[in-house]
Amino acid sequence: MIGEQYLLLPGPTPVPDRVVRAMSRPLVNHRGPEFKEIITGVTAGIKKVYRTEHHVLIYPASGTGGLEAAVVNFISPGDKVLAISIGVFGDRFAEIADRFGARVEKIDFAWGTSADPQKIRDILQKDQSHQIKAILITQNETSTGVFNDIKSISEARGSHPALLMIDSVSGLAVVDLKMDDWNLDVVISGSQKAFMIPPGLSFMAFNEKALEVHRTCSNSRFYWDLDLGMKYLEKGQNPVTPPISLYYGLAEALTMMFEEGLDQVLARHLNYRNMIRSAMRAMGLELLAEEHCASTALTSVIAPGRSGANQLRKILLEEFNIAMAGGQLSLDDVIFRIGHLGYIRELDLLSVIAALEIVLKKNGYDLEVGAGINEAQRFLYQMHSK
Amino acid sequence: MIGEQYLLLPGPTPVPDRVVRAMSRPLVNHRGPEFKEIITGVTAGIKKVYRTEHHVLIYPASGTGGLEAAVVNFISPGDKVLAISIGVFGDRFAEIADRFGARVEKIDFAWGTSADPQKIRDILQKDQSHQIKAILITQNETSTGVFNDIKSISEARGSHPALLMIDSVSGLAVVDLKMDDWNLDVVISGSQKAFMIPPGLSFMAFNEKALEVHRTCSNSRFYWDLDLGMKYLEKGQNPVTPPISLYYGLAEALTMMFEEGLDQVLARHLNYRNMIRSAMRAMGLELLAEEHCASTALTSVIAPGRSGANQLRKILLEEFNIAMAGGQLSLDDVIFRIGHLGYIRELDLLSVIAALEIVLKKNGYDLEVGAGINEAQRFLYQMHSK
Repeated sequence: MIGEQYLLLPGPTPVPDRVVRAMSRPLVNHRGPEFKEIITGVTAGIKKVYRTEHHVLIYPASGTGGLEAAVVNFISPGDKVLAISIGVFGDRFAEIADRFGARVEKIDFAWGTSADPQKIRDILQKDQSHQIKAILITQNETSTGVFNDIKSISEARGSHPALLMIDSVSGLAVVDLKMDDWNLDVVISGSQKAFMIPPGLSFMAFNEKALEVHRTCSNSRFYWDLDLGMKYLEKGQNPVTPPISLYYGLAEALTMMFEEGLDQVLARHLNYRNMIRSAMRAMGLELLAEEHCASTALTSVIAPGRSGANQLRKILLEEFNIAMAGGQLSLDDVIFRIGHLGYIRELDLLSVIAALEIVLKKNGYDLEVGAGINEAQRFLYQMHSK
Repeated sequence: MIGEQYLLLPGPTPVPDRVVRAMSRPLVNHRGPEFKEIITGVTAGIKKVYRTEHHVLIYPASGTGGLEAAVVNFISPGDKVLAISIGVFGDRFAEIADRFGARVEKIDFAWGTSADPQKIRDILQKDQSHQIKAILITQNETSTGVFNDIKSISEARGSHPALLMIDSVSGLAVVDLKMDDWNLDVVISGSQKAFMIPPGLSFMAFNEKALEVHRTCSNSRFYWDLDLGMKYLEKGQNPVTPPISLYYGLAEALTMMFEEGLDQVLARHLNYRNMIRSAMRAMGLELLAEEHCASTALTSVIAPGRSGANQLRKILLEEFNIAMAGGQLSLDDVIFRIGHLGYIRELDLLSVIAALEIVLKKNGYDLEVGAGINEAQRFLYQMHSK
């Protein structure tokens, strides 16, 4: 098919040409001065994105690796942890903790809604003997397109000493996060989302309180070991051989993010969300996520009649070269997920809305073709008239 | 400085332009049909390189991650393991096993020599109650430039039921390895060595016997979990988001390796070794590795007077843009290591010999400038006259 694919997944996301070029540079010695400069620079850059003055380690791994790193560095076998899940990735974080011997108390919220801070406050207040050592929560739940209000969750913790550990793999730089201001102890992120580079790197930020807990953490670890990581970072190195090309890409992507400005990056994603959601509503489509917690990274749209989402995705791919994600588990074939994070152009989203209208109409959905793009264009007009 | 760097490390190694171009392709859905084709193809290709009909999993990780995967999937806490070390990476494999609760019996051989199969035979024969559950050994020890004779080690195991687990991170496709013929149970490799792609992928091959042991293995794991990996591989996926760009590069690199032919790849590395070693001897330099076990991946050269190796490396980098590795721990400043694995041109090695002669002479080493390159050229002449 002519032209590049519209990659509208909730990760991996399109890689900017500048980043591709940066990644194409010849490799260097990962124990030499050039790499030292790179790792020092990107570590400082990532801290800015996390809005933290504390520590950041970069792992050669996918985002899930970062979650495992958080578990084995800060949770000991036998520790009670409170795992808050609003979807597949909340379940995954809980499962990793369970696999590494934690006693997991899991609270689930319905798919499509966010976690209720009041419920968490209640649970923690009842835990007067402070049995709960850590709280695990996903910031942006990719499986449903919902974000949790991490600031309120942190406030709900109050004076309870449990570590607050955030899976922000698909959230960071898409949904606002202020690690230090919000008093978050451990935050994990990944490279293939708002960081605009291919998958393969995971970031773990942690504060002094987490470091204190780490000192007595008895889980087995080597690859993820924080002490090794910090020891080598002091030398400007990684304990293992790092994915050098991805570091090149990361340095360039951070430059682009700071050129744009972090606040503007967040505002742009908010606009994408609002544009897509208003267009979907204008097309008469039902949205999975409630308004107050709808993700700025992706939008989950319920297929007409609650089925046939996969067939729609198949036609969009075959006829328009548009790649979208489907639903997982109970949402399989029920929803399709439009990713709108990272290096996306607003007009590409308009095009996708147009294609979706055509495909829906062809498939027998009663729709006035044009309703969606007219709404999207109206939205863009207002944005550009400000 | 004008021109590209001579990257003569024992990994990362130079990346072919074809691989760089492949890696620059836009990303695709890692849960879609295109990626399924890629992961299926590269998994089959890697099996050919391992010369195995058994199983291969690809991890988003450095080689060390693959070693950890081997430990947590096949060794249970409390298991006795025999760890054979001839250098830094042998020590690392032993340490990972130790961290994950194995009772490690470690035997060390002097740095610069290989493991003696007879000693291993003796130890195993004394273990009549089969307490030893696994044997850990490095095929190619990067810290010294020595390879172990894995075939003889496997024969030395005889009928002892311990799993034979090989760290072939820097060995595979450089030193001969026939997983099935030699009856090896678990073999780990990495992407940034003979596979000619940037770091970031690790490969774990394992046979049915290992799989049987895995079924009762009680170590905690999620990211490295073999069952998850195999379940997703059946669907043409990875449990976590894979480093898609590196997969593109891997597919292209495998194509190049098969175009050249695996036997020719091995023969080429053998020639590199012989050429470098004869040139170093012609220059009067002492080599760390004994002749019978000298690595075809890299050559460790002892600096004149057993010190000043780092200063030589510094000048080579500054004046000729040649990157070489130094020695580690007790060999720091004593040796320099010339990497000659992967996408290296024979004439580049000749150039490096020339530069080394100049730098040594300038540094006061008594040397007839030209002795090394004359020997190297003579070697090349003979090779090309066959």
